[in-house]
Amino acid sequence: MKLSIERSALLKAVGQAQSVVERRNTIPILANVLIEAEGDQASFRATDLDIEVVDEAPAKVERAGATTVNAVTLHEIVRKLPDGSLVTLTDDGASGRMTVEAGRSNFSLATLPREDFPVMATSEYEANFVCSAPVLRRLFDKSKFAISTEETRYYLNGVYMHIADANGGQVLRCVATDGHRLARIDADMPAGAEGLPGVIVPRKTVGELRKLLDDDDAEIAVSVSETKIRFAAPGITLTSKVIDGTFPDYTRVIPSGNTRRLEVDAAEFAKAVDRVATVSSERSRAVKLSLDEDRLVLSVNAPDSGAAEEELAVAYGDDALEIGFNAKYLLEIASQVDRENAVFLFNSSGDPTLMREGNDETAVYVVMPMRV
Amino acid sequence: MKLSIERSALLKAVGQAQSVVERRNTIPILANVLIEAEGDQASFRATDLDIEVVDEAPAKVERAGATTVNAVTLHEIVRKLPDGSLVTLTDDGASGRMTVEAGRSNFSLATLPREDFPVMATSEYEANFVCSAPVLRRLFDKSKFAISTEETRYYLNGVYMHIADANGGQVLRCVATDGHRLARIDADMPAGAEGLPGVIVPRKTVGELRKLLDDDDAEIAVSVSETKIRFAAPGITLTSKVIDGTFPDYTRVIPSGNTRRLEVDAAEFAKAVDRVATVSSERSRAVKLSLDEDRLVLSVNAPDSGAAEEELAVAYGDDALEIGFNAKYLLEIASQVDRENAVFLFNSSGDPTLMREGNDETAVYVVMPMRV
Repeated sequence: MKLSIERSALLKAVGQAQSVVERRNTIPILANVLIEAEGDQASFRATDLDIEVVDEAPAKVERAGATTVNAVTLHEIVRKLPDGSLVTLTDDGASGRMTVEAGRSNFSLATLPREDFPVMATSEYEANFVCSAPVLRRLFDKSKFAISTEETRYYLNGVYMHIADANGGQVLRCVATDGHRLARIDADMPAGAEGLPGVIVPRKTVGELRKLLDDDDAEIAVSVSETKIRFAAPGITLTSKVIDGTFPDYTRVIPSGNTRRLEVDAAEFAKAVDRVATVSSERSRAVKLSLDEDRLVLSVNAPDSGAAEEELAVAYGDDALEIGFNAKYLLEIASQVDRENAVFLFNSSGDPTLMREGNDETAVYVVMPMRV
Repeated sequence: MKLSIERSALLKAVGQAQSVVERRNTIPILANVLIEAEGDQASFRATDLDIEVVDEAPAKVERAGATTVNAVTLHEIVRKLPDGSLVTLTDDGASGRMTVEAGRSNFSLATLPREDFPVMATSEYEANFVCSAPVLRRLFDKSKFAISTEETRYYLNGVYMHIADANGGQVLRCVATDGHRLARIDADMPAGAEGLPGVIVPRKTVGELRKLLDDDDAEIAVSVSETKIRFAAPGITLTSKVIDGTFPDYTRVIPSGNTRRLEVDAAEFAKAVDRVATVSSERSRAVKLSLDEDRLVLSVNAPDSGAAEEELAVAYGDDALEIGFNAKYLLEIASQVDRENAVFLFNSSGDPTLMREGNDETAVYVVMPMRV
């Protein structure tokens, strides 16, 4: 194999590869990136056996072939090469070494045989549709904060993507919850998504996917089967197993009868929550919301260290109410609001509270109260 | 006590205080900042029993007095208050609470009696002189990287500041070493420094001092005794115990007979060292320098992972030489060079190597070679 490639294209491809590779693994070849050169392009493939990423970049291929080298080391080398370098990768197939040449720098890296590299089996996908990058970004960015980190509840360790009924039609929906809070984000149903089986997209996949979605103009081809999901952006394909489990019936958790409506500037609210939470200890960061006619008082009482109180002018016209929340959860939910005021709908101090952006029903959050 | 103060002035003062306070300590009051209000200013004092910092800021004092509160919590609160706020601190002396008010925010923090706050004993200083901030910055910035982190060699855990003979006169000198490398930085002798006893300024003090030296126009009053050193910048005073030990005779370590002269662009050299070191394992990052007529080849050989080589055009006119160094040490030394080319003076592959910036004798570095 012998190919020459622009340093910036190589850096992007190898960057994505080394991010998928697990830092600690017992199977040496999983630390490697598979480089394949043919025609006028090179492909860079990495996997952790659950996720596979393939990046394709234009290259000048002098001799077709393939090899594997340590992804992290190659990435470090390319990162440190001067911008604008032309990088030549050569593997004679016999020495067990691949050379990396750029300008006056010369590296030789240990290789492992390409035959040993585990390539993910291809799947039959039941649904294929196209989604713009901003739409996918919104679906996952606004839901991922609620993904559970409890490994025993593995079926909550991802975002549940599925088709749901809403407003008399169907929507593409992402839901995540950890039992304390929940996010439910809807997007218009894309053509071709009708047969979509509901799948739980793992947390790591959501993170890797995010890197494919930076370009506002990109159209992403999404393919879904019962066991896998694939995202294809121009030049890069991410394939991932989905979590083998059943996502709980979240609809029961979303309150429909909450009528006490509070409207508040989300940024002001978040800053005030952050400030009053300062005095409480790390573990039990409970913030109390005391509501009265157009008036919200946030307060924290930590007997050991002190107390804090802040008043906000809000829109609230219902009976007085006192309700407590985990400060971190309130902050995370408030920070999802990017366009309008945050609207909270309460029932009682013991019931789940609903939050949304203005009257937008396509992004709904639920948070459980705490006793204060 | 009751005082009002600009949020930005308060943030600066409390920021310095919370930085001196140790995060984990068994004596509760050492977590606190002592706030004293009198006349038209407030002072903020914090200590870890080795270092004491006092910051003075103009304030509107309504009722003189003093109290102590948790420095980290107060800093967090002030940091989160809106820029431009006027902050009022009130302690009625009876409730065991100090209130912090700003706009619609209201905090109350647990206090501890000011009488319990340990104030550092005042000293008789044997030398008092004034140094501009850039001069002090250079003395410590260029030497501190060589401070030892080995706690058993406590007498190397700081920068040795003293008066030395150089070029037929006297200079103010800072030296640090960890046995593997050494930095020796000289500055013109300030008036009043004649009686300066040699003192070892602890690592943490060097770090705290740095925050007083950002203003190029600031003049710093330095006072030194056998046991303490004090730096007074406008509005802020840092007092520190010095390390009770004897700094070794470093002069024997600095080679004087090295004649093989290499001159190299420091930035290019550092980048090349960084690149070739990529392939080696974390622990033994040895880089080999192979010198020949106007030619330097940097190389690393790590049998497990690979090899790297890079050639640099340099000025070198002596016999061929091969010598190895720890990559980290070479990088740190090369990054001290900010104006001119780096000049290395070698003897043999087993002897300490000297490095300086061009022909400037006021900043000299020594690094021990490694077998490669």
